[in-house]
Amino acid sequence: MNIIIINGPNLNLLGKREPAIYGNLSFKSYLDKLQINFPDVAIDYFQSNHEGEIIDKIHEADGKFEGIVLNAAAYTHTSVAIADAISAVEVPVVEVHISNIHKREGFRHKSFIAPYCKGSISGFGLDVYRLGILSFL
Amino acid sequence: MNIIIINGPNLNLLGKREPAIYGNLSFKSYLDKLQINFPDVAIDYFQSNHEGEIIDKIHEADGKFEGIVLNAAAYTHTSVAIADAISAVEVPVVEVHISNIHKREGFRHKSFIAPYCKGSISGFGLDVYRLGILSFL
Amino acid sequence: MNIIIINGPNLNLLGKREPAIYGNLSFKSYLDKLQINFPDVAIDYFQSNHEGEIIDKIHEADGKFEGIVLNAAAYTHTSVAIADAISAVEVPVVEVHISNIHKREGFRHKSFIAPYCKGSISGFGLDVYRLGILSFL
Amino acid sequence: MNIIIINGPNLNLLGKREPAIYGNLSFKSYLDKLQINFPDVAIDYFQSNHEGEIIDKIHEADGKFEGIVLNAAAYTHTSVAIADAISAVEVPVVEVHISNIHKREGFRHKSFIAPYCKGSISGFGLDVYRLGILSFL
Amino acid sequence: MNIIIINGPNLNLLGKREPAIYGNLSFKSYLDKLQINFPDVAIDYFQSNHEGEIIDKIHEADGKFEGIVLNAAAYTHTSVAIADAISAVEVPVVEVHISNIHKREGFRHKSFIAPYCKGSISGFGLDVYRLGILSFL
Amino acid sequence: MNIIIINGPNLNLLGKREPAIYGNLSFKSYLDKLQINFPDVAIDYFQSNHEGEIIDKIHEADGKFEGIVLNAAAYTHTSVAIADAISAVEVPVVEVHISNIHKREGFRHKSFIAPYCKGSISGFGLDVYRLGILSFL
Amino acid sequence: MNIIIINGPNLNLLGKREPAIYGNLSFKSYLDKLQINFPDVAIDYFQSNHEGEIIDKIHEADGKFEGIVLNAAAYTHTSVAIADAISAVEVPVVEVHISNIHKREGFRHKSFIAPYCKGSISGFGLDVYRLGILSFL
Amino acid sequence: MNIIIINGPNLNLLGKREPAIYGNLSFKSYLDKLQINFPDVAIDYFQSNHEGEIIDKIHEADGKFEGIVLNAAAYTHTSVAIADAISAVEVPVVEVHISNIHKREGFRHKSFIAPYCKGSISGFGLDVYRLGILSFL
Amino acid sequence: MNIIIINGPNLNLLGKREPAIYGNLSFKSYLDKLQINFPDVAIDYFQSNHEGEIIDKIHEADGKFEGIVLNAAAYTHTSVAIADAISAVEVPVVEVHISNIHKREGFRHKSFIAPYCKGSISGFGLDVYRLGILSFL
Amino acid sequence: MNIIIINGPNLNLLGKREPAIYGNLSFKSYLDKLQINFPDVAIDYFQSNHEGEIIDKIHEADGKFEGIVLNAAAYTHTSVAIADAISAVEVPVVEVHISNIHKREGFRHKSFIAPYCKGSISGFGLDVYRLGILSFL
Amino acid sequence: MNIIIINGPNLNLLGKREPAIYGNLSFKSYLDKLQINFPDVAIDYFQSNHEGEIIDKIHEADGKFEGIVLNAAAYTHTSVAIADAISAVEVPVVEVHISNIHKREGFRHKSFIAPYCKGSISGFGLDVYRLGILSFL
Amino acid sequence: MNIIIINGPNLNLLGKREPAIYGNLSFKSYLDKLQINFPDVAIDYFQSNHEGEIIDKIHEADGKFEGIVLNAAAYTHTSVAIADAISAVEVPVVEVHISNIHKREGFRHKSFIAPYCKGSISGFGLDVYRLGILSFL
Repeated sequence: MNIIIINGPNLNLLGKREPAIYGNLSFKSYLDKLQINFPDVAIDYFQSNHEGEIIDKIHEADGKFEGIVLNAAAYTHTSVAIADAISAVEVPVVEVHISNIHKREGFRHKSFIAPYCKGSISGFGLDVYRLGILSFL
Repeated sequence: MNIIIINGPNLNLLGKREPAIYGNLSFKSYLDKLQINFPDVAIDYFQSNHEGEIIDKIHEADGKFEGIVLNAAAYTHTSVAIADAISAVEVPVVEVHISNIHKREGFRHKSFIAPYCKGSISGFGLDVYRLGILSFL
Repeated sequence: MNIIIINGPNLNLLGKREPAIYGNLSFKSYLDKLQINFPDVAIDYFQSNHEGEIIDKIHEADGKFEGIVLNAAAYTHTSVAIADAISAVEVPVVEVHISNIHKREGFRHKSFIAPYCKGSISGFGLDVYRLGILSFL
Repeated sequence: MNIIIINGPNLNLLGKREPAIYGNLSFKSYLDKLQINFPDVAIDYFQSNHEGEIIDKIHEADGKFEGIVLNAAAYTHTSVAIADAISAVEVPVVEVHISNIHKREGFRHKSFIAPYCKGSISGFGLDVYRLGILSFL
Repeated sequence: MNIIIINGPNLNLLGKREPAIYGNLSFKSYLDKLQINFPDVAIDYFQSNHEGEIIDKIHEADGKFEGIVLNAAAYTHTSVAIADAISAVEVPVVEVHISNIHKREGFRHKSFIAPYCKGSISGFGLDVYRLGILSFL
Repeated sequence: MNIIIINGPNLNLLGKREPAIYGNLSFKSYLDKLQINFPDVAIDYFQSNHEGEIIDKIHEADGKFEGIVLNAAAYTHTSVAIADAISAVEVPVVEVHISNIHKREGFRHKSFIAPYCKGSISGFGLDVYRLGILSFL
Repeated sequence: MNIIIINGPNLNLLGKREPAIYGNLSFKSYLDKLQINFPDVAIDYFQSNHEGEIIDKIHEADGKFEGIVLNAAAYTHTSVAIADAISAVEVPVVEVHISNIHKREGFRHKSFIAPYCKGSISGFGLDVYRLGILSFL
Repeated sequence: MNIIIINGPNLNLLGKREPAIYGNLSFKSYLDKLQINFPDVAIDYFQSNHEGEIIDKIHEADGKFEGIVLNAAAYTHTSVAIADAISAVEVPVVEVHISNIHKREGFRHKSFIAPYCKGSISGFGLDVYRLGILSFL
Repeated sequence: MNIIIINGPNLNLLGKREPAIYGNLSFKSYLDKLQINFPDVAIDYFQSNHEGEIIDKIHEADGKFEGIVLNAAAYTHTSVAIADAISAVEVPVVEVHISNIHKREGFRHKSFIAPYCKGSISGFGLDVYRLGILSFL
Repeated sequence: MNIIIINGPNLNLLGKREPAIYGNLSFKSYLDKLQINFPDVAIDYFQSNHEGEIIDKIHEADGKFEGIVLNAAAYTHTSVAIADAISAVEVPVVEVHISNIHKREGFRHKSFIAPYCKGSISGFGLDVYRLGILSFL
Repeated sequence: MNIIIINGPNLNLLGKREPAIYGNLSFKSYLDKLQINFPDVAIDYFQSNHEGEIIDKIHEADGKFEGIVLNAAAYTHTSVAIADAISAVEVPVVEVHISNIHKREGFRHKSFIAPYCKGSISGFGLDVYRLGILSFL
Repeated sequence: MNIIIINGPNLNLLGKREPAIYGNLSFKSYLDKLQINFPDVAIDYFQSNHEGEIIDKIHEADGKFEGIVLNAAAYTHTSVAIADAISAVEVPVVEVHISNIHKREGFRHKSFIAPYCKGSISGFGLDVYRLGILSFL
């Protein structure tokens, strides 16, 4: 099985910044551990701070992967364009959020992408990526 | 490990009604399969259409279980009292929803309980219960 | 024909309290007169101040009655759970209100249950129950 | 007993258009059947697409009829002027709607005229006219 | 000086209905007294329950009268079309209201026509027409 | 091909009033030029300040014309009744606006009729009528 | 007859500032002319930029004057305390505004004091004071 | 004098949970001290997590007690049904809240029951019960 | 113990105006009785219609009094400045309101000062001052 | 005449995805046909999923093209930056949308760019591009 | 150059209260240091807790000073009257805030005075006064 | 000292477009003059129309510069992602705006980035950059 994890803006800083919120594990080292947990799943990874690159990657993923685990980060709350991209492709997308977005500012309670996703998982820390992959198994 | 699944109003009708939305598996038969999947987890079950009984059960669960998988159904959107119950106990609660609540009416987008839960999982059909248990492992 | 009238919170006080709004006829004596008017209809009656009991009764009524005349009173404006119960059963439900809810406070103008009912009748005093039954004939 | 049914805009097309919503019976043939059902009630009828003509007719009806069954259709949601007309006359007015307006667009949930009417009946199809007349008997 | 008073919907009932709010003087007899007060002003009068006729009359008045005293009644709160008519003509329009609209329902606090009028006078009972004419002198 | 242009309230003043916004060409002379541009299209014309007459005309046009170019002017923003008329007929309706309504007051940004029209064209001055006809060719 | 004109904040600058909006006549010279127009009315005058002083003056005026012509200026839109003062006294208060407040920013459309006044007059320039006095005659 | 204290959802946990907010005194021990303070007042006590049971108890209290001190907790913000119960009975009800609800989440600022209560007391910790009883003396 | 009662705008009229709402006891005579009830408490008193003077007095009270009983009246709903004053001083402030503000206009339901006060007491008539003092004992 | 069509996010998928909404013609083949229809117009084309690239292209187009036909797709509803770009350049921009955006979700009814465009055309399917070009001729 | 710093309500407590937010420097000692930094600028100072006095001072400053550095504190969010004063005078006003008002409660995000000021500076602590003066140099 | 000025979308057109709002000085020539004013500060410069590039640059700036002067232009009002970037880095960011954003459209009054910035400066024209640098000295 082929799955791609797509991380949105500022998630390249994971493990370096705001450890109180996001933990102090770099995403790279987390990813290595995740891959070991799922020997039968090929896990690809993409991160970008650019809304347009995330859209391009979702388009590309269609037909190439059997699932997308998407943490759109801040674009979750502002991007109709990413929502439309998810709606336009056939590959199922699972929305994940590391923190519990419902404990944070009001504008983070709104997700433009949730209605177009297969499902949503949020609040379990980095463990949301593991649960996201498990949702495809 | 001891975990309790608490189902809220109208979920006693699962498998009997609205199969297009909720599937045609009765929760009982689903539960049997779920238990087989998790031989090391004792899975208890409670369902009620009464807000007060759900609150009572959350209070009782504290100290007795290591986790609650809660599908508060309609009370998700109206019950400050269940939210306060979750906030008052120490046992971690995971919020689950069978359907993708963000595809449905606007009043279902608001969750009073989400900010007090360990995490939220929604939209994967009955599979949200399996993912809910996995989130404790 | 079998029909059940379900009355929600505080309607047990009908005839005793607030006669200016609700009249001074007890619901029991009104019901007797109503039954006489409809010799061919078996009219059952249930009242509860508990949201959960109203949901339980709607579930039970499914298959046992050919119609429900429901005055959900205050729960009309706050209960998504009763709305979901109506949506989940096959027995048709007619929403009734004794007073003209549109003349009262703004929060009484919103009905969560109306979209799931066969129809709505309000403002005619106790006569809404007679009209509710007539709507099934 | 003298009663007038007043139908608002686009209801002249009943039976010709949108049978899925409004049925395929022309209002004329429905009216004939209705009259037969109520041999002791003289049922008059008026339809107009003009807000002003509906107001004029409500003024005229005062003193001439013992009741108005009013389906103000789209003007329900936009006409303060018709609401004021109802408030200014003594003849009681019953608001009816063929479809369940609470299942439709949000702007149809607001009724300017409801607070000034004796009562409201909606969602039972053409049967709302029969129930409207019954509410005067 | 030529001035026209234009009265909107339901004001044909002045003096007959709701004397507690509008007084029990018919507008006709009030108008006679008003004319006597202003021997040097030719006061014309028009009343309609039809939005379109009020617009037509405003168009006609342009060039024929030196001022319009307009009580648009309910259309004040709903008619963009009358507002546009006032904006399109050169004859100055003074908005009047018999009752204090700010003491009444919230939807009566909004005036679509006020921004296009020379000025507004409300709350003085029938005396608003006298003040309206005085505003042109 | 038969097409009818329907103009709403205050558009009878085109060319006479507010030339800065609407130009100084009378609609009559514009129409003559438009007809010359489309020798194969029979262009009919109707203007009214009355909401009810516009509804009547839309009903009449059904079956008689192959398309309606409708500038509902102020009624665009307030008339559910015209929207329902468009929805009830089969003749396709194209919504046009001379000015760019999005540059004007907030209440002009809302169109009740747009959702029921084949398409919308706004902001090109009188040229919107030419484009409206071209949309049928 | 004794009447007091009370002017609120910044109106001490009338005639000096913003002549395009408020004219270039100082209030003093306007007042002299106004007094000449009404030989039988004793016109007192008070201006303050202090909300508290305006409240004190309204209290004092009670029993001493037969009417207050109040231009509360900016406090119109923010002062519940002045509204309560008007409500607490028996002397009738007429609200006036020099400019057409409905043509200005949205927050100027709301008047806290209007519901407690005898009537409101706005938009006629300084002439609103003359009309205000006339409303007592 | 007979007074009943009614505590709503989650208040059975007082003294056990969230001592930072609610103190670490169990309500039982607090009640004993309170009773000693008021030797002339018979203080009854009822707690429930069930909205319906609170309504039932309010009904029962009518005629049996001279006052109710009600801490409806979370139901304060969501229960129209408890508000209606208070409105329907004659026994005066005093609303109390242990914490300052205005310092907490926005949805806790709204009280459905306040308009129907004799008065409200909040923010003084457990001392609100003492003040509630004092309000009846 | 030293306590100061601070009364806001229009409360100087207590006992003279609107007895139906506020009773017919002047605050002076009420205060005399209150002092007698609390022989061990020195009760100071201050009233002003000026927001600034109330702020000045709160500043002054800090260090001089052990408690403030504040009825900010209309300023409750509009004064961020008084709220900031309460927040800036160490002397505890108890908010009181004579009438039940939740039964009155919507703008009176909002209290800017409540979040910064030790507690709030409203609706018991003049008795709120006695309860306010009791809250310090 | 030189015109450039700029297509926004996800429009690279036209003809491949969601044929029910957007038709099954690829934009490339549509463009070829469009060019044939306008032999005297040089039609350039640009598509990007990146907001920044669309802004860059609008800047570049200034001085190089006589018109832009812009389908900003999802960015229509979220991009103030594109709106500012249109406002900053002199080349006229015509806004087009393939589907009737007023029939879709509420957030698609808001266009940030419409107020800065020469005009808007929506709902005619791919034909909006032809009409967009015709608006320049 | 003559500049006046005007400080609004509660700023007389600077340095004494809430040092965590506002620092522990008294404004007097800060002012001395500021004056030393700007030997060529005569810096005047005024503080008041009274909205009316701030308005009076702004009027007085006109013609006497070349600039006003205004920290209106809480009145920023509630005073239309101060906004009007700024708009009425010719002396330029620079708005300053010590704390970052956008990190605080929602009602502090709204500034009535900002639209009428030359510019705004906030969040740099007491340094905003230095920057405010620099903005005039 | 090292400081970087980051300019957002459309600011590459400064000096070329809309001189009435932004002046006619190109940013390049302004920057040269600014550098001369601050001989001891190394001022770097970056401009992009791409949200993602601005985020990348903020990440890069962390550790390399002692301060960022950020004019996020249109992204100020829409970009949660840039706000998160500011929140994630340690280098202090000062928000600047050339024009007074509070005088412009309502959607420009909201700043997503302000709560995460050290301070904000707006409305002084290009001089905001000089003040921004001064805020670091």
